[in-house]
Amino acid sequence: MEQKYMELAIRAAEEAAQADEVPVGAVLVRDGEVLSIAANRKERDNCALSHAEMLAIGEGCRKVGNWYLDDCDLYVTLEPCPMCAGGIINSRLRAVYFGAYDPKSGALGSVYDLVGEGKLNHRMTVEGGIRQEECGKLLSDFFAAKRAEIKQAKADKEKGLC
Amino acid sequence: MEQKYMELAIRAAEEAAQADEVPVGAVLVRDGEVLSIAANRKERDNCALSHAEMLAIGEGCRKVGNWYLDDCDLYVTLEPCPMCAGGIINSRLRAVYFGAYDPKSGALGSVYDLVGEGKLNHRMTVEGGIRQEECGKLLSDFFAAKRAEIKQAKADKEKGLC
Repeated sequence: MEQKYMELAIRAAEEAAQADEVPVGAVLVRDGEVLSIAANRKERDNCALSHAEMLAIGEGCRKVGNWYLDDCDLYVTLEPCPMCAGGIINSRLRAVYFGAYDPKSGALGSVYDLVGEGKLNHRMTVEGGIRQEECGKLLSDFFAAKRAEIKQAKADKEKGLC
Repeated sequence: MEQKYMELAIRAAEEAAQADEVPVGAVLVRDGEVLSIAANRKERDNCALSHAEMLAIGEGCRKVGNWYLDDCDLYVTLEPCPMCAGGIINSRLRAVYFGAYDPKSGALGSVYDLVGEGKLNHRMTVEGGIRQEECGKLLSDFFAAKRAEIKQAKADKEKGLC
């Protein structure tokens, strides 16, 4: 695990927040080379498959020209959901290092543990909780700002109706 | 559930087999309109994310211009893996109808039951085993042919070495 790659993932997440996306960033690395840096693009792409991890893996496959990424490591700011954990397993990644745990949809320890339970045919390194406060704060700040926006919009609407 | 959509999915799977891909096909439907038909393209795309379900959902999102597909149903010849089941849940599909069960990686009843267990925040209709013999035979025929190819290649090699 190298901190500098998580740093890049955090920067990608920050850029996602600025684009009004839930801030999650991911970086795919092979032998010290960054293959791809991606952020969540669900709203921009109008597609719920456009999570940071999936985009990073997809771009990595295009660069490597192979679906089999067993010498690649993924760094991501949030614990992957079942879709992304499944994509990580399908791509045979060597390791995944993530930031904040996700008690609602996390599939590498929180809600499910798709690798650790050993029911699927792939073993890999999984390490969570890396810079988790910082990664989690990006998300909680984003959602707090969203709630404030909604509250303000409601208040403005009510004023208009009075 | 309408048989005609599973028929289209089976045809897509057959085309995949002809292209030397593990034969799985998927069809996304909204209000009687076929939004997308896709087959597994993992080898052609050099990408383990290119499962039929993911490609069908991705194309559906592009057509609809929305990630939220709660009025859409997916028909697929094989029980979705965790990645695809996760993508189905993330996209909030209304229903998924699948053919053969997958005892190795199925995530809608076999290895996991990501919808039925109720741990994730989405409820939907799931029905498996539709034309399962036919869907399963496509896969077993494909793998039998692959094994025969490998055996023949070995035999040819040994002959050459004698």
